[in-house]
Amino acid sequence: MRDTLQALSSTATFNRWAGFEVVRAEAGEAELQMDWRAEDMGQYAGFLHAGLIGALLDTACGFAAATVAGQVTASHFSVNCIAPGVGRRFVVRARVVKAGRRQVFTTAELFGQGEDGELRLVATGNTILVPLEAPAR
Amino acid sequence: MRDTLQALSSTATFNRWAGFEVVRAEAGEAELQMDWRAEDMGQYAGFLHAGLIGALLDTACGFAAATVAGQVTASHFSVNCIAPGVGRRFVVRARVVKAGRRQVFTTAELFGQGEDGELRLVATGNTILVPLEAPAR
Amino acid sequence: MRDTLQALSSTATFNRWAGFEVVRAEAGEAELQMDWRAEDMGQYAGFLHAGLIGALLDTACGFAAATVAGQVTASHFSVNCIAPGVGRRFVVRARVVKAGRRQVFTTAELFGQGEDGELRLVATGNTILVPLEAPAR
Amino acid sequence: MRDTLQALSSTATFNRWAGFEVVRAEAGEAELQMDWRAEDMGQYAGFLHAGLIGALLDTACGFAAATVAGQVTASHFSVNCIAPGVGRRFVVRARVVKAGRRQVFTTAELFGQGEDGELRLVATGNTILVPLEAPAR
Repeated sequence: MRDTLQALSSTATFNRWAGFEVVRAEAGEAELQMDWRAEDMGQYAGFLHAGLIGALLDTACGFAAATVAGQVTASHFSVNCIAPGVGRRFVVRARVVKAGRRQVFTTAELFGQGEDGELRLVATGNTILVPLEAPAR
Repeated sequence: MRDTLQALSSTATFNRWAGFEVVRAEAGEAELQMDWRAEDMGQYAGFLHAGLIGALLDTACGFAAATVAGQVTASHFSVNCIAPGVGRRFVVRARVVKAGRRQVFTTAELFGQGEDGELRLVATGNTILVPLEAPAR
Repeated sequence: MRDTLQALSSTATFNRWAGFEVVRAEAGEAELQMDWRAEDMGQYAGFLHAGLIGALLDTACGFAAATVAGQVTASHFSVNCIAPGVGRRFVVRARVVKAGRRQVFTTAELFGQGEDGELRLVATGNTILVPLEAPAR
Repeated sequence: MRDTLQALSSTATFNRWAGFEVVRAEAGEAELQMDWRAEDMGQYAGFLHAGLIGALLDTACGFAAATVAGQVTASHFSVNCIAPGVGRRFVVRARVVKAGRRQVFTTAELFGQGEDGELRLVATGNTILVPLEAPAR
């Protein structure tokens, strides 16, 4: 499962640019990580850009959904910016809340990992995905 | 105003990487554009990545808020993915819905611009921002 | 159309209790109003309760969607609380942003109407609805 | 704490009408319940109305926030409608994700409880609240 998702991730040019790595995947869950690069990932104050916060949350949610619903496409995502995005690396953990036939609801947490290895909550997110082969009612 | 925001944008390494260009800014409104690059902006199907959709919406909302509220930081954003992100260029228009003392509510629309120059709606978004010098009640 | 939606509204016991009145409905748009009752609609400070703010926004969005997509069910809604819910009457205007085969995206604004008849923005909302007879891909 | 929140709830006329009961409250957490009444709580298909789903989620989030942040007011809430709102009683559990000086982020789950006593997930929600005595930076 992890390898399948990593291969899927590699087909996305943005994911390759950002260096998303799938570190865990099982039924209804996925975990990604990404190394911080100051030279092209920062917002104006030097923290992780909200676009990358959203990208990590949305991608992990999509992968968690894919473990149970096959190919999906995101229709909605929301992000709560809890704390500045600081870390040497960022870790995001997503899980499926409910996999319906027409929509998959997922939730995720994004952490910054400092030099001490400790994870600190940076943002939370929720995503709604639509299975590409959703059946008619 | 446009130049001030473009200068602010240039301090963000992600904005420089993505090539965000401020094309318009006035009281409570901002418009950005970004040229499409297939080699590092795509999701797995080759459309604009959700992370960049979120980045464009969130950044335009932040700039619209900055025109009336000074320095702000995003606390929440949500994105509706209306249609696949296809275009040679992407254009995002944001406006302030309400600028309160403690929170600024903004909304934005993201369009893909094709070879014919026509704009097609790709996504909508809403952002809540907190003024950095918010007064106590 | 207005009469059809008013009849639909009357089948919902909560809508009858709240006194929702459909004042306008056309392709992709709907407008509802509700008279304020201090004795059972207030939150702790005496303003319109967030539950009723959400109910008005969500119901108007559902009705706007129904004008173009037939029977729908809400899967997600979000509410921005812009100003205290004050008024003798509340008016909500919703419109469809995009009616897809699988999901309908809508947006709405809720106003409080004072003694002077003027409308003041209280809240905005976004709703995603799923058509009950959504086709398979 | 439970008694304080129940007393606060009783000052809201909508909460009294709906019969919200605070069943648990501790630092950063709150649980409410509400008995189902078909005669004034239903949507058109006879399930719990989205307005009450939102009201329960938002109120529980507000109470969870109040346990750590004193008086708060909701600025944003979002609701995922996971399954039809069916039950003899509804139970909502909220917890604080992060209590900042300017904003409190909370999340909640709403369950329907059937004749068998079992809880089934109906909806999830997220709320952002602003402390009424938020300090200036």
